[in-house]
Amino acid sequence: MGNTAAFDATEFRRALGSFATGVTIITTRDMQGEPVGLTVNSFSSVSLNPPLVLWSLANNALSLPAFRNNGHWAVHVLASDQEDLSGRFARRGENKFAGLDFDEGEGGVPLLRGCMARFQCRTATLYEGGDHLIFIGEVLSFDRDDAAPLVFHGGGYAHATQRDPAHTSPKSAWLDGSFSGDFLGYLLGRSHFRFYAQIRPLLEQAGLSDEEFYVLSALTLKQRMAINDLDAGMAGVLDDGSRDALASLVARGLARSVPEGYELSDAGRDCALRLISAATAVESQVLERLGPGDAQVLKSLLNRLLTVIDPGAAALWDGAP
Amino acid sequence: MGNTAAFDATEFRRALGSFATGVTIITTRDMQGEPVGLTVNSFSSVSLNPPLVLWSLANNALSLPAFRNNGHWAVHVLASDQEDLSGRFARRGENKFAGLDFDEGEGGVPLLRGCMARFQCRTATLYEGGDHLIFIGEVLSFDRDDAAPLVFHGGGYAHATQRDPAHTSPKSAWLDGSFSGDFLGYLLGRSHFRFYAQIRPLLEQAGLSDEEFYVLSALTLKQRMAINDLDAGMAGVLDDGSRDALASLVARGLARSVPEGYELSDAGRDCALRLISAATAVESQVLERLGPGDAQVLKSLLNRLLTVIDPGAAALWDGAP
Repeated sequence: MGNTAAFDATEFRRALGSFATGVTIITTRDMQGEPVGLTVNSFSSVSLNPPLVLWSLANNALSLPAFRNNGHWAVHVLASDQEDLSGRFARRGENKFAGLDFDEGEGGVPLLRGCMARFQCRTATLYEGGDHLIFIGEVLSFDRDDAAPLVFHGGGYAHATQRDPAHTSPKSAWLDGSFSGDFLGYLLGRSHFRFYAQIRPLLEQAGLSDEEFYVLSALTLKQRMAINDLDAGMAGVLDDGSRDALASLVARGLARSVPEGYELSDAGRDCALRLISAATAVESQVLERLGPGDAQVLKSLLNRLLTVIDPGAAALWDGAP
Repeated sequence: MGNTAAFDATEFRRALGSFATGVTIITTRDMQGEPVGLTVNSFSSVSLNPPLVLWSLANNALSLPAFRNNGHWAVHVLASDQEDLSGRFARRGENKFAGLDFDEGEGGVPLLRGCMARFQCRTATLYEGGDHLIFIGEVLSFDRDDAAPLVFHGGGYAHATQRDPAHTSPKSAWLDGSFSGDFLGYLLGRSHFRFYAQIRPLLEQAGLSDEEFYVLSALTLKQRMAINDLDAGMAGVLDDGSRDALASLVARGLARSVPEGYELSDAGRDCALRLISAATAVESQVLERLGPGDAQVLKSLLNRLLTVIDPGAAALWDGAP
């Protein structure tokens, strides 16, 4: 443990950053009538009755005179898809509002759109707080939308995912040491098989085997593909390589051999695009039931898992022109 | 938008709850020398120089006299695995510290262990804040550990997952409408195949096919399994049911037919436990590389995905005695 005299500013910031926060943009209008705003994560609720919230602003902030002078300001709690907005208002700059649609709140305060919650406030008190000034605001009105939040933690942006209720995962009670339903291999396999089961009727309609579908899909990635690239892409998926499936696609007129390797025929391209469009519709339905926030996190974590267990997985896509 | 007069307390709380926060426990010692502590999410950093932090306490809180009287207190930023501790200190009760190991900080303040960060503070100022009192503390010392944070959002606990740097996912540039590497079916399939590729050498050593391994694993869940239960569990996994794999396990002396269905032989049980132990070790290595926080969220989201696409997936486990 250090003491005040020995505080290392970087270490202190890092320790403070271990407390996760949402992200807000706080806006007002300056004496020239120009909209003013900045990204703030020191927001906190204070009192329910009267309704009070607080945030802190550095004494040397350029926008301090505007917030001091205009007794009204608005707090915008940002949603997960507003990271760009957060970045825009975190930078010093003249034109933070350029091109943004906004409404006018009490005191002419600019109100941004698409936020999780907005609080229109009137300054109730200003308190000294070292190198910052603490604004205590009475909340005059507010609104709220259901959305996933933007989170800030450890110096970077984060997703928040609701936790499962605490539970012990189901496990065989008679044979100690057996698999639980929480084994990653089971979860990945089951998820894959069940998701694929919703795609398979589409393949049956098109008269394609799983293997033919994999290879057909891979052929949509580049205009022409060498057989070695195809085989590398299918490593771990098709044990015997792509040749059998390729031969069958060629025999059915969906693909053709060219000097550089293989390419889709017009019929193959139509077939692939029809299947992909239908499969993407299935995916959309699944992801909608999962919720957009969780869907984004799941994909992000599967991508991270792949970089851990399969550094070469991106090769098929990286090669795309 | 409402106004002050029309504030609905529940709606206001809900709007405030859209701002995500970390979770802290703040401790002190009362005039009788008893340790006191409560769960607080109104923590916020205020100033770097001097180092100040703040939090708010309800005017009618039982612990208010203790915090007012003892000018020292400590803020503990909780880690992801401290949800139970958060719950314990959020309830009114006499014995919050019962059975807890803690150290003594400045002013005799109890210091809890296993937290992400701890700030030992001396009250610098008390400010009125409506129905709450705002404690401004000068940070005397702090420490920090790397860990995943406990997050509170929308009235419940949440995980925080670091966001990927903003990027456009790789996509075929030549054929509009083709799959991207972000398609859930691709991510699930690829993750499954690659994870399974690390398990497969274990199966080869044991001389088992994939199908035999699936059925052998399923037979570890209950002491005896009816063929219909087995087939139901394998739906979407083994297209032709369990019979072929079962017959081969029986022929090799790893399983046997009993009046109620099938069960593992002693040799089958040994074989299964050896494989499961080795597979679990592979899983641990993968999850360690992913990081414990992300690993937990990934499993949680795959479970959530399964309840969405495969409500019957839990049936195999639910039936366990």
